[in-house]
Amino acid sequence: MEIAELQRALRATYFERDTGRGSDATFRWLTEEVGELARALRHGKHEELELEFSDVLAWLASLANLTGVDLERAAARYANGCPKCGASPCRCTFE
Amino acid sequence: MEIAELQRALRATYFERDTGRGSDATFRWLTEEVGELARALRHGKHEELELEFSDVLAWLASLANLTGVDLERAAARYANGCPKCGASPCRCTFE
Repeated sequence: MEIAELQRALRATYFERDTGRGSDATFRWLTEEVGELARALRHGKHEELELEFSDVLAWLASLANLTGVDLERAAARYANGCPKCGASPCRCTFE
Repeated sequence: MEIAELQRALRATYFERDTGRGSDATFRWLTEEVGELARALRHGKHEELELEFSDVLAWLASLANLTGVDLERAAARYANGCPKCGASPCRCTFE
């Protein structure tokens, strides 16, 4: 699936609801799902983990739709190596 | 860009480093970037916002690589309407 396709699917399914709720409340949902991802990392069951990644992606795309961000453009930054050092594998020396 | 393509790019660039750091520390990075996304939402400058969406996506993909999650499979759950009610637009009555 193209990233743009996912973003369009989320727009078709949730944009009206997302708009009604607004970006702060949508961001709150995103963080709730990141918390559920943390719990799934702790429990370690694969199906649950995949489901939480799914939800985080979905809420991220919803928030991108609300704020006018093109996730394809956002993702393109990582398409060809590290955006900081330009290399793949990354050669950055700090973390 | 296909979601799988993004995940592969992140694997090529960061998997060795991600593996050395481990999933808990990688999750910590993900949450740091979600915090930076919150700040970018507050400031409201579009380029900064796009950059933070970019970083959240990247760290999510890195974490997916570390934990063996296929983001294409994860995303597919939202490809055809709401996974809860099946409809697009969503017809769920609670939030």
